[in-house]
Amino acid sequence: MVATELRTDPITGRLVAIDLAPFKRRDDFDLAPARLEDPPAQCPLCEGREAEAGNEILAWREGGPANVPGWSVRVVPNRHPMLRIEGQMPARHDGLFESRDGLGAHEVIVETPIHDQPLHALDVDRLWRVLWAWRTRIQDLKRDTRFVSVVIFKNHGRAAGARLDHAHSQLVAFPMIAPALAGKLRGAARHLSVGGRCVFCRLVEEELQDGRRIVSRRDTALAIAPYASRVPFETWIVPHDHSSRFEDCSDTVLTDIALTMKSVMARIDWALERPAFNVVLHTAPFSGEADAAFHWHLEILPRVTRFSGLEWGTGVHRNPVSPEEAARALRG
Amino acid sequence: MVATELRTDPITGRLVAIDLAPFKRRDDFDLAPARLEDPPAQCPLCEGREAEAGNEILAWREGGPANVPGWSVRVVPNRHPMLRIEGQMPARHDGLFESRDGLGAHEVIVETPIHDQPLHALDVDRLWRVLWAWRTRIQDLKRDTRFVSVVIFKNHGRAAGARLDHAHSQLVAFPMIAPALAGKLRGAARHLSVGGRCVFCRLVEEELQDGRRIVSRRDTALAIAPYASRVPFETWIVPHDHSSRFEDCSDTVLTDIALTMKSVMARIDWALERPAFNVVLHTAPFSGEADAAFHWHLEILPRVTRFSGLEWGTGVHRNPVSPEEAARALRG
Repeated sequence: MVATELRTDPITGRLVAIDLAPFKRRDDFDLAPARLEDPPAQCPLCEGREAEAGNEILAWREGGPANVPGWSVRVVPNRHPMLRIEGQMPARHDGLFESRDGLGAHEVIVETPIHDQPLHALDVDRLWRVLWAWRTRIQDLKRDTRFVSVVIFKNHGRAAGARLDHAHSQLVAFPMIAPALAGKLRGAARHLSVGGRCVFCRLVEEELQDGRRIVSRRDTALAIAPYASRVPFETWIVPHDHSSRFEDCSDTVLTDIALTMKSVMARIDWALERPAFNVVLHTAPFSGEADAAFHWHLEILPRVTRFSGLEWGTGVHRNPVSPEEAARALRG
Repeated sequence: MVATELRTDPITGRLVAIDLAPFKRRDDFDLAPARLEDPPAQCPLCEGREAEAGNEILAWREGGPANVPGWSVRVVPNRHPMLRIEGQMPARHDGLFESRDGLGAHEVIVETPIHDQPLHALDVDRLWRVLWAWRTRIQDLKRDTRFVSVVIFKNHGRAAGARLDHAHSQLVAFPMIAPALAGKLRGAARHLSVGGRCVFCRLVEEELQDGRRIVSRRDTALAIAPYASRVPFETWIVPHDHSSRFEDCSDTVLTDIALTMKSVMARIDWALERPAFNVVLHTAPFSGEADAAFHWHLEILPRVTRFSGLEWGTGVHRNPVSPEEAARALRG
């Protein structure tokens, strides 16, 4: 019988249940095709349909006017935004109930002009431009004093919540600290006050020493299978040196991140047979209050397992593949 | 453009983003068939294969020996348990990392002997026996002093994480307060200390007064679309009178719950075209510490939307159907 271990995430304190069996039970996995097979002829993100996607906020272009072909990365407003620029900040109250306008920004980063090209199929220079677009947009949005924090995420494939095949990521700027980030910041602040240092810096050190969960290692960035992985082959990319904000990354660090992302995503593609996945960028809030405690990082979350009543009901994710097994498979 | 409202769940404080448009966008929904079409001939939960499912812990039988046909509800150990009876309680520490044995109990409640009969297709008497099995198992497990809290949940359909079509629910007993319950208890304790009463009692009162989110109403139980619904047509079933523990329900209350469940689930089945769904029972921990603050309740969570990078990254669920629209559709 497979033993299960309950592990605590060192940053957030969340519990996961990890099956310690050797990695093999792939018949459990959701390996339905990741692609939606939406027809390129109707794709609003394809080159040549710039007007449909919306007015560009930013683009990487070799000269030429905006909103026409000739770009390699393009940022536009989300057409179905969760948050939008218009609205009032204060909350409304009615008895037990509190609501507020969905104030914020919600943008789409179109990662390539080509319909059928996933992010990890881009060459490193083009992947670098996607990270450049992320960095540039955060640098710009933080000048808007209404915004407090930003999250960038990516849905690849149907099971990951994508609605379009065309590779894109999304940026959401919040007038508050986003709840998922708040959980991480609380944990990081606790570690700083108890241990006197950034928990991610310590994590990098301990993972390098242990070695079992290392997926790949470059000069400035480390990829690990996190100790309390929520899903099979969850991978975090963390800069070696303390750095609270993604938008402060140098070009050199961005290159290491691009190289690491490409290689990790290609290996996950191989190991899980082109799974759907999500990517999330967590970076410190704009105020600077968390700069000593928090360290930006990327999470890659393959979506071959399903969120069930177990997760809703108990708040514990069950993961059938230990991070040690996943890292071994991704290294090998 | 559809306005989005950020709402705060009054119990846990979690944020959801709710699209306030009229309910219609069903083309967004995951309406893939809920059933897995696993062959009855191999189903371990079918009548006649009692040995495969495991030794029965409890069954509703009209006389006769155990572990043979003749039951209407049957409880067996989970064959792939997340938690199991053997193990040590104390946590192990290694630098930043904390782990512990998966100590606890994990049982399966087989809800019917018939392969092709979903829970809400059972007649009320038989549905009542499922609730009786839940109640009886909790009453028994709380005598084991190692256990602190219990969660019961159900996965119906592929998108809800089910691995078998045969209707069943699962019970997990924890040697700690399960994290999802802990979040609710914290919120409930805060309300008790500020407002001097149970937040669920107040919620029932305010929802009855408001009326817009009521799905159905019986003498002892109310079904509502919660104000900060995470998924379309999320429905909570809450007893009218303060009651912290499901296992203390009278037979009469169980009857009202069975009638409410059957009717709500049938209406959700109709409105969302037989969706996959999860059900979760939240009941107070065994110690009694939360008895004044907490009120047991059932959550029904249809699974027609997908958990995306938005939810992972921001911690905010996005729900394309407001609870007011959902309740109107379910009442109508």
